[in-house]
Amino acid sequence: MASTVGRAIQCRAAVLHSAGSEFELETINVEPPKSGEIRMQVLYSSLCHTDITIADWGTLKYPVILGHEGSGVVESVGEGVTEFAPGDRVICVYQGECGKCKLCKLSTTNHCEVSFGNLFTPFMPLDGTARFSSLDGSVIHHFVNTSTFTEYTVLDKTSVVKVDPVPLESACLLGCGVPTGLGSALNLASVQAGSTVAVIGLGTVGLAAVEGARIAGATRIIGIDILARKFEAARAFGATECLNPQDHEAPLHEVVLLELTNGGVDYCFECVGKPHLLVQALLSTTGYGTTVMVGAPRPDEMVTFPPVILLSGRQLKSGYFGGFRGKSDMRKLVDMCSTKEINLDGYITHRLPFSEVNEGVKLLSSGSCIKCVFSMDG
Amino acid sequence: MASTVGRAIQCRAAVLHSAGSEFELETINVEPPKSGEIRMQVLYSSLCHTDITIADWGTLKYPVILGHEGSGVVESVGEGVTEFAPGDRVICVYQGECGKCKLCKLSTTNHCEVSFGNLFTPFMPLDGTARFSSLDGSVIHHFVNTSTFTEYTVLDKTSVVKVDPVPLESACLLGCGVPTGLGSALNLASVQAGSTVAVIGLGTVGLAAVEGARIAGATRIIGIDILARKFEAARAFGATECLNPQDHEAPLHEVVLLELTNGGVDYCFECVGKPHLLVQALLSTTGYGTTVMVGAPRPDEMVTFPPVILLSGRQLKSGYFGGFRGKSDMRKLVDMCSTKEINLDGYITHRLPFSEVNEGVKLLSSGSCIKCVFSMDG
Repeated sequence: MASTVGRAIQCRAAVLHSAGSEFELETINVEPPKSGEIRMQVLYSSLCHTDITIADWGTLKYPVILGHEGSGVVESVGEGVTEFAPGDRVICVYQGECGKCKLCKLSTTNHCEVSFGNLFTPFMPLDGTARFSSLDGSVIHHFVNTSTFTEYTVLDKTSVVKVDPVPLESACLLGCGVPTGLGSALNLASVQAGSTVAVIGLGTVGLAAVEGARIAGATRIIGIDILARKFEAARAFGATECLNPQDHEAPLHEVVLLELTNGGVDYCFECVGKPHLLVQALLSTTGYGTTVMVGAPRPDEMVTFPPVILLSGRQLKSGYFGGFRGKSDMRKLVDMCSTKEINLDGYITHRLPFSEVNEGVKLLSSGSCIKCVFSMDG
Repeated sequence: MASTVGRAIQCRAAVLHSAGSEFELETINVEPPKSGEIRMQVLYSSLCHTDITIADWGTLKYPVILGHEGSGVVESVGEGVTEFAPGDRVICVYQGECGKCKLCKLSTTNHCEVSFGNLFTPFMPLDGTARFSSLDGSVIHHFVNTSTFTEYTVLDKTSVVKVDPVPLESACLLGCGVPTGLGSALNLASVQAGSTVAVIGLGTVGLAAVEGARIAGATRIIGIDILARKFEAARAFGATECLNPQDHEAPLHEVVLLELTNGGVDYCFECVGKPHLLVQALLSTTGYGTTVMVGAPRPDEMVTFPPVILLSGRQLKSGYFGGFRGKSDMRKLVDMCSTKEINLDGYITHRLPFSEVNEGVKLLSSGSCIKCVFSMDG
């Protein structure tokens, strides 16, 4: 087989042509990597709920290739890339890290000027052009520095990280949802041993917040969801009890505050992305409790609450990627997966061939799936 | 002069009989301290804006003795009190600390079950009765574990702390506003050296936030107020520049974000207690900035904002007494006053005899006063 290095590759991709439509499986062109870039053969790509919700916001440039949790091997590298070589087993991270900019040097954020600064640019971050095109030559846009619903993608080197020895079949999960939930507990909230925690919404991110709270040594972890079928997984990840708000007449925060705890939980994680649940989360904590907004609310939604509830010391936090740095913190996550402290395989409920990408979206939307991993060769 | 120990003392107090009325200077009875209590001769009492705003909320039990920043000497102690002796030079702190309860042992809060748990009880915290009465025997209520607008007050020992060698003439300021502002910068926000800070509202608390930011090593400190006459003091406490929002057509956050900084301040302190300014504060920070709500909003006011602005890592915090523990952190504050790192006298713009307590309220309400200290013998 002739080398593909330095030449465009024709391959299959799932292209989204408009808000709310299904993905179209098409053959596209993927240009070779330019300076500082890597072309990656995507072997596995997992579906994150954000792929679905953002597609619905109508804020993207179409056509676009979504997907931001992908694992695979480096096919070729652009000029000046010495950190990676063809054959390296890697994942991509939307929350990249150049390691050199002002933000990368700050201790107070995990942002990077190159990566975060161009997160919603629908092109490559450094030169502002696309590496994807349709066979008629028209541009196909990039998505959050990643775009993994394609057999090949091009990434800035700031968004690529090696993940040996985590198997590529599950390593793709380290690209977003699992670190986001884990880090919300471990980094953003800094959950203390012996504390009481509530997690609202038990999808991947919520389950990972449960797992993070367990790793941090929380004594009580209350898993909350309106779908009772999620409770088994929540208990497996560390929930000590589960609550379905629909089983109670009182508002959620009253159930948590008065019935389950004597005055609130120390930490509450809102993993659904609904402002009214964020208020419930704030009210479910003790007067000095921490609420972490983990789910992404729509940009046009508002939250309303009496700010006096903060005065006694409540705090409200959030953050991309659970506060982890995309590259320099990945070794820690990889080690935790190797020792099984993080049960990465536990999140995967479905494996589908890439050809069934739209079926995966339906499964995740219905709430009957935690994590669906697509094999890109299927 | 006969000893007053064990007997009621008749003395002068400023009594508030209803929301919004003036203080009435009256002779009252002050009972001797019960078990675990201290009777303090108040020598100096300073006026905090909260005395005025809370009086206006209509949530108090009347008649009541307000005032929560007081310094003086221990007159007598109740049964079991070994930590204090008559003659000790002390201040009172509304944010008391028993040192033994579950909350006092937590690293995540400065609350105390005895003190904070009874903060809004209009009586003594432990036995739920009053030590103040009018000469006809009717009850006069206590206020936030303190009540300093009286020549003698009774305090639970958890709310009393020694302050040598800080002169009593200014030590009363360590009871609320100054630590609240300082600690908002030093404890709640943990301002980093080299950072950029904005402070909205340049009363005592705001000036102390400016001072805290300076002590923490902030490089730029932007003082913000609609009264330009406050800027001189702000500069003296460490503001590197001052801004009057009324000089600009653009909203405050746009001026801070676009004109003064290239993308926001690292920390913003809202020291007015107005929800719309809290939103301006949030929007004035970088995407990963910290906003501290220092001013107390009315309990019936709401804040409304798009929660998506938190997603990039903005955080919103608050806390009583700037996160300082009322007693165990006081040594640190006293030392900082002794070395003049804290310019305690700099906050005092007015000294009045206690007989002019209503004049002090007028001065503070008009914005022409930073801190007014009453000499209780005048």
